[in-house]
Amino acid sequence: MRYHKAPDETIRRLPSYLRGLALLLDQGYKSISSQGLADFIGINPWQIRKDFSYFGGFGTRGVGYDIEKLVKQIKKILRLDVVHKAALVGVGNLGLAVLAYPGFGVYGFEVAAAFDVSPQKVGRKVHNVAIEGVSELGTLRKRGIDIAIIAVPREAAQQTVDELVKAGVRGILNFSPCYITVPKKLKVITIDIAMDFARLPYYMPRQAGA
Amino acid sequence: MRYHKAPDETIRRLPSYLRGLALLLDQGYKSISSQGLADFIGINPWQIRKDFSYFGGFGTRGVGYDIEKLVKQIKKILRLDVVHKAALVGVGNLGLAVLAYPGFGVYGFEVAAAFDVSPQKVGRKVHNVAIEGVSELGTLRKRGIDIAIIAVPREAAQQTVDELVKAGVRGILNFSPCYITVPKKLKVITIDIAMDFARLPYYMPRQAGA
Repeated sequence: MRYHKAPDETIRRLPSYLRGLALLLDQGYKSISSQGLADFIGINPWQIRKDFSYFGGFGTRGVGYDIEKLVKQIKKILRLDVVHKAALVGVGNLGLAVLAYPGFGVYGFEVAAAFDVSPQKVGRKVHNVAIEGVSELGTLRKRGIDIAIIAVPREAAQQTVDELVKAGVRGILNFSPCYITVPKKLKVITIDIAMDFARLPYYMPRQAGA
Repeated sequence: MRYHKAPDETIRRLPSYLRGLALLLDQGYKSISSQGLADFIGINPWQIRKDFSYFGGFGTRGVGYDIEKLVKQIKKILRLDVVHKAALVGVGNLGLAVLAYPGFGVYGFEVAAAFDVSPQKVGRKVHNVAIEGVSELGTLRKRGIDIAIIAVPREAAQQTVDELVKAGVRGILNFSPCYITVPKKLKVITIDIAMDFARLPYYMPRQAGA
């Protein structure tokens, strides 16, 4: 089931709701109002209600949200109700940071394979994942891995994408700050940390006396 | 000058316009229509015109945008018309990846200092930046560094933020996947790569036959 009416910005916020709700569950909460959730996450309560309204709304007036049920509903919308196995391509500093990243579990992600071109790296095991040569990328399909994280130098990004497409990958998280061309049957989300940096000064308070 | 009316989503898109325009300049273009810019970046032309309308609109009907002028105007809005010096705190794998990151130049950012708690790292030079002990964080103010990038383990994030506040930092890019508490005089943008991951399956095309 796809919900075509929800704007991208709503889809962008849903994971942050999930993260907040997971923390609330950890702290022993069972239900919460949209106001309470909004305060906890740090956004407007009307924004939450509006986002949920695209999916028919989830709360009961005056009672609030059943947290566990809400988590399940959001996971279903985002298709996170199944475990996704991902492959990392490029085990440099950024790739190593991805392998060590503690935040994937909440969303049901597992980095199940890692690939690199360097013969010095292939065969080593990092954070319980054995590094394989890129010549093994063709095995992804039969291993049920359909998501890839690209952390290769930008010169190598396009070729890596082309190989991943052949290997049946349908979703890519791209850390190479470059434009890549992909067929329509594939979704790519590019993370450019410089772009997040670039909107920081806009929001920074002025210096005293400036 | 602050433009309070522009929504956050517009501010989120402005850096991607800047990046696209910089590439167009590199390729020798002098002016471009909103349709041409939209095609190049891969978004809707009405979105570009709407985003620019918050700042009075930049183009001339039928002529399009003067690219160099537009770059200057967007940089001014985002306060990227001055060079920003940033400090990196935490020189682990992620920190090393930040130091090696090639994408900051477009936005006028310079990672001018790096700090770590490890005595083995302090004193070493990485990508032309000498690693200093965290006890030196107090020197940031007099060095004109008012932005910090936090790439420390999440247990250490809050304490790091507290020290950066004391050191006069006004903006933080936080890579630790955790909630941190900050005074109002500081802007923090948290980058949680798991959250970008979490919206990928929603957009992935279905498998053949699924």
